[in-house]
Amino acid sequence: MLLSELGEFGFIDRIAARASGHPQVLVGIGDDAAVLDLGGPELTVVTTDAHFEGRHFSLEHMSPAEVGWRAGAAALSDIAAMGARPVAVFCSCALPADWPAERAEELLGGLRSAAESVSAVLAGGDMISNRQVALDVVVVGSVPRGQELLRSGARPGQVLAVTGTLGATGAALALLQAGGPDALTAAPGAVRERFVRPEPRIVAGRALAASGRVAAAMDISDGLVQDAGHIAGRSGVGITIEAARVPIAEGCADVAGDLGADAIAWALTGGEDFELLIALDRDQVEPLAAMAAVAEIGLTVVGSIEEGEGVRVLDANGREMELPRGGWDHFG
Amino acid sequence: MLLSELGEFGFIDRIAARASGHPQVLVGIGDDAAVLDLGGPELTVVTTDAHFEGRHFSLEHMSPAEVGWRAGAAALSDIAAMGARPVAVFCSCALPADWPAERAEELLGGLRSAAESVSAVLAGGDMISNRQVALDVVVVGSVPRGQELLRSGARPGQVLAVTGTLGATGAALALLQAGGPDALTAAPGAVRERFVRPEPRIVAGRALAASGRVAAAMDISDGLVQDAGHIAGRSGVGITIEAARVPIAEGCADVAGDLGADAIAWALTGGEDFELLIALDRDQVEPLAAMAAVAEIGLTVVGSIEEGEGVRVLDANGREMELPRGGWDHFG
Repeated sequence: MLLSELGEFGFIDRIAARASGHPQVLVGIGDDAAVLDLGGPELTVVTTDAHFEGRHFSLEHMSPAEVGWRAGAAALSDIAAMGARPVAVFCSCALPADWPAERAEELLGGLRSAAESVSAVLAGGDMISNRQVALDVVVVGSVPRGQELLRSGARPGQVLAVTGTLGATGAALALLQAGGPDALTAAPGAVRERFVRPEPRIVAGRALAASGRVAAAMDISDGLVQDAGHIAGRSGVGITIEAARVPIAEGCADVAGDLGADAIAWALTGGEDFELLIALDRDQVEPLAAMAAVAEIGLTVVGSIEEGEGVRVLDANGREMELPRGGWDHFG
Repeated sequence: MLLSELGEFGFIDRIAARASGHPQVLVGIGDDAAVLDLGGPELTVVTTDAHFEGRHFSLEHMSPAEVGWRAGAAALSDIAAMGARPVAVFCSCALPADWPAERAEELLGGLRSAAESVSAVLAGGDMISNRQVALDVVVVGSVPRGQELLRSGARPGQVLAVTGTLGATGAALALLQAGGPDALTAAPGAVRERFVRPEPRIVAGRALAASGRVAAAMDISDGLVQDAGHIAGRSGVGITIEAARVPIAEGCADVAGDLGADAIAWALTGGEDFELLIALDRDQVEPLAAMAAVAEIGLTVVGSIEEGEGVRVLDANGREMELPRGGWDHFG
C-alpha cells in the first residue's frame, strides 16, 4: 500500500504501534507534543513541526520574516495546546546557498520574534544548503505535573469549545487561489494579519491548564472538524459540532461575499487557525470564559461530547451537513 | 553577502550574536547540543540534525533502514558528545506520497533501532509529503548537573584525544565516487559497516563525563581538523595534531591502496566518523583509556592544546602539512 493510500494518520498509527515504551516518556506519538518526565518538578514537553516551501508556504506571497514567524507560531501552538510554557526553540533550516545572508537572517529573525513574543528563545538548530527552503521547528517547554492537557480526556456530557475565532487562514488561502498575492495584499487587514502572523495561545493555554478544569485539548492546525476527530478518536467519544455556533474571524464574511464562498466552510475545514480546541464540563464554561477574557480571548462553545465515535456537524436547522473533504492529510 | 560566501559557520555566528539569553538556557547555539535547566536533578540536552536526500545521503547506495539508522546515530552522537544519555528521539520526515508504506516503515525502523540501541525511544515527530526525502532528527537527553561536556573547556598544556578510529566514512565516500554503489558493496566489510551503521558513543561519552576529568568534548562530524578547530575557537586555544598518531579505521589502508589514495587524509578531513574528540590533562590519559577500554573502545592521543588559535597538523617528520580543503561547510 502506498503512503498516499494509507494517509498521513494511518501511517502515523502504524509507526506508533511499533514504538517502544520508556519509563520517562509519559506521552509519545499521537498528541500535540510528547511529554517526558526528566525528574524535575515540571514535566518536559517537546514538539516538532516541519514547514517545506511549496507544501506549507510560498515566498511569493509571504516575506521571509513572515514565513519564519508562522513556522515558529505553528510549533509554539502545539506547546500551548499542552497547557505548557515554551522555553527553547530550535530550527533545522534548509536554505539555498545563493540566498543573501540578510534574507536568511530575516527569516530566522521572524522565528526568533515568534519565540520571544512568548518569552522563549532561539537556542540552536541545524543549517544546510538546499534548493527547496525548509524549516523544522522544535520547541521544548515545561508544564507543572498534572497540568498537562491531552487529547484523550474528553467524556460524554461535556461540551467542546474553541478560543478566539476561526476561518481567517481559509479565507487567505481562498484569496490566494482566486487572485494571487495581490488579492491577499488587498484583503481585509485582519485576514492577512491572522494568516501571516498567527499568535500561539500560550497565555490562554497556561491559564486553562492551571484551572484544572479542562478535560482535553489540542490546537486547531488541521481544521476544526478534523481536529475534533482527533479528540474523539483519542478520547473514545463522539462529537457533534453546531456550525452556527462556530465563531468566524473578522473579515471572513467580507471575503466570502466577494468570492461567493462560504465563510463557515473555512471555519470548519480550513487548517492552521492555531486556536485551542477544548473539552470541558458545561458548568465550567462560564468561569473559564471569564478567565480567558483576561487573556483578551474569547471562549465559545461549538458542540458537545457524546457516547459513540467520529464527528458530525449540524447546520442551523439541526440537519447533518455534508462537508467537502477538508483539513490536512499530507499523504491523502 | 551570499550564504555561500559567508559560509555555514559564519552564518551561525551571526544568528548566535542576535540570540537572546534565557535563564533556563545554559548553553545555546554553538555546541553539539543545547543545555537547558528545567529544574530537575539533571540538565536537559537537546540536539537537532537534518539529513536531506542528495545532500547527506543517497538511497542509491544505502537501504532505507540504513538511512534511518545513520540519521539517528548522527543526532545521538551529539548527545554522546555532551556526556549525556538520550531519552527520546523525534523525527520530522518528508517522504514521497508514492512510496510504499513498507519502505517508509523500514526507514523509520532503522531510526527506531538506532534509538533503541542506546536505550532511547522514538517518541514523536512530524510527517509530510515531499518529493525530496528529508529527515530532521531531534534527541532530548539528560546529564547530571556539572557533568555536561562542552567544547569550551580546553586549556593549554592539555592533550587532544579521540575515541575509536577515523577515516571509514572518507574511504566509503571515495569508493562511491570512484566506482559507485557496487564499489562500496565490494569494500572491506568494516568500511561499509562503519559507513552505513555508525555507533553513537553514548556509553563512552557517559563514562568520560562521569569521570569528571574531561575538559572539553565534541563529536567528529565535520572532520577531525575542522572539529578540532571548533574546540580551539570555543576554548580560545591553539591545537597541534600529529598526523602519524591518528588511529586509522580497519580496512581504510586497503581501500587507499586500491584507489591510490591517502587514508590519513580521510582520517584528518573526512566527516561523519562520529567518534568523540576530547581535551584532557596528560596524566588523565592512562586512567581514562583504561575506562574507555571497558566500553570496548580505544582512546588515542592525537595532539596537544597550546596558547594561540587555530589548528595545525604535523606530518611524521614534524613538518606542517598543507591540507586539502576538507570537512563540511554546507554553504561554503
